[in-house]
Amino acid sequence: MLSGVRSAARKRLFRSDPAELLGVANWSETGGGGAGGHQHWWTALENNFVLEATDDEYGGVVVDADRLPADRAAFARSLAASLSYWKSVGKKGVWLKLPVDLAEFVPLAVKEGFKYHHAEEAYLMMTYWIPDEPNMLPANASHQVGVGGFVINDQMEVLVVQEKYRGSSLDGVWKLPTGFILASEEIYTGASREVKEETGVDTEFVDVVAFRHAHNVAFHKSDLFFICMLRPVSSEIKIDETEIQAAKWMALEEFVKQPFIQEDHMFQKIMDICIQRLRKCYCGLTPHHVVSKFDDRTSTLYYNVAEPEDVNCSAA
Amino acid sequence: MLSGVRSAARKRLFRSDPAELLGVANWSETGGGGAGGHQHWWTALENNFVLEATDDEYGGVVVDADRLPADRAAFARSLAASLSYWKSVGKKGVWLKLPVDLAEFVPLAVKEGFKYHHAEEAYLMMTYWIPDEPNMLPANASHQVGVGGFVINDQMEVLVVQEKYRGSSLDGVWKLPTGFILASEEIYTGASREVKEETGVDTEFVDVVAFRHAHNVAFHKSDLFFICMLRPVSSEIKIDETEIQAAKWMALEEFVKQPFIQEDHMFQKIMDICIQRLRKCYCGLTPHHVVSKFDDRTSTLYYNVAEPEDVNCSAA
Repeated sequence: MLSGVRSAARKRLFRSDPAELLGVANWSETGGGGAGGHQHWWTALENNFVLEATDDEYGGVVVDADRLPADRAAFARSLAASLSYWKSVGKKGVWLKLPVDLAEFVPLAVKEGFKYHHAEEAYLMMTYWIPDEPNMLPANASHQVGVGGFVINDQMEVLVVQEKYRGSSLDGVWKLPTGFILASEEIYTGASREVKEETGVDTEFVDVVAFRHAHNVAFHKSDLFFICMLRPVSSEIKIDETEIQAAKWMALEEFVKQPFIQEDHMFQKIMDICIQRLRKCYCGLTPHHVVSKFDDRTSTLYYNVAEPEDVNCSAA
Repeated sequence: MLSGVRSAARKRLFRSDPAELLGVANWSETGGGGAGGHQHWWTALENNFVLEATDDEYGGVVVDADRLPADRAAFARSLAASLSYWKSVGKKGVWLKLPVDLAEFVPLAVKEGFKYHHAEEAYLMMTYWIPDEPNMLPANASHQVGVGGFVINDQMEVLVVQEKYRGSSLDGVWKLPTGFILASEEIYTGASREVKEETGVDTEFVDVVAFRHAHNVAFHKSDLFFICMLRPVSSEIKIDETEIQAAKWMALEEFVKQPFIQEDHMFQKIMDICIQRLRKCYCGLTPHHVVSKFDDRTSTLYYNVAEPEDVNCSAA
């Protein structure tokens, strides 16, 4: 489970025991000469200060990104001293988050053996795996999530678009509105939002009818694409001109007959499913809010619940 | 659509037009003095060389990571010159991938206004959005994908585990084997692999019965968790001692009666669904390989197909 890295109650702040760091068993005794001797220890301590960090639940440490040294030389010294210390006390994984304004520390951490883990606009996360055993640190995010909206009105017309940026094989092709869900967005809100942005049409989410899993897509990551049935609650079309060339309501029969769909096994199957769903011969997955004590998190569980009129679907 | 960034046929390699770069309308004419004059232009060109890059499908450029200058000073000069050039020719997004062995270039690119986009162990991807309009560059990966295996044998016993690293609220709790799918792994293989790793039991994938969508989980990313029904094809238990405390076959009734499940709305619902599925009163989603002409990609489409004996499920 990944959860430990960020959901872990930060158990205790620690700094190194100064004596341990300097390899002296009992420094308060050995340093107890004159004021000059004392000064010597403090200077050494300040030069070798172990980075502020908290323990994680898996025997590792998370460096405090808000308390990093101010300059390159101090950071380089502290990082080396910290690694020695963490190794000596048997720590496993080290998490080092470098804010973008400390980008000059990145090459220093690489030199010390840290690896890139993931990055967001505000920071680069680096890691160091200490033990002589396989790296158990969790991987970074692996998937993009897209949505496609099957929006059909009472006249059996489907809401379709032509995209502005498309391969030439898609010239003249009318397709369903699609897009990526935003950070922390729900699938059901993302599908309605994309349809609204691309076509101006308001919709209500009905269900997820199927999903597609593909690999090695953007930045070599994987892709989950959810095909969603939506009910239109407005009809006037107003396109987003930055992304969309044209949008319209198109007779379902005409839409399905396009060579692009007829020749494409995947789209044909998706359209079969949508049509079965329309005829109430297919159960989609509907979103339900659930709270789990396991992680005290509100989340959305998608499962089959037949509508009362879906006589063929016994999943209720 | 994200696809352009990496699936784009790289349309043409370009270097800047030297005259445009140096602000000279027609350099071959102005430079046409003696050999000394010519030399002058070439030296200037070499000092200001625009980075090798290819156009993407969206009016942007992708810097060639294999042909970056060798040292910091040359990189800084080239990056500044390149940005001036790309701005002058109306380019939009710039993609700059810095391999980890060129980490020393990271602070230089930050100084020039580049932002972190994402990172993998081998590189950091940085971007620069040139136009005076909202940034249209695609986001980085947004989700982790997990799987949970509901494995039940003919004696109505469920395969359960106790994890080694768990919150104290889970002490003594028996739960389903769970884990994250690996890079480019299928949900159906990931579920079987996790069950095998944690318990030693071999299984066949049956279907996805439901999925959970949660936000702000690991590294503030979102999480999709697929609950999978699996059929055991072996019974002997052999645990992975690095992750698992114990594993066993547990009577379904006893498993469901655990206070942990009784008090947790989400797990109770998941168990209801799994039991309905066992009674063939619920349709799960099964994986089907599909190829799409749209992107020439083999992928997996998950949808309902009733088994012949599922008399209540008309999705076939």
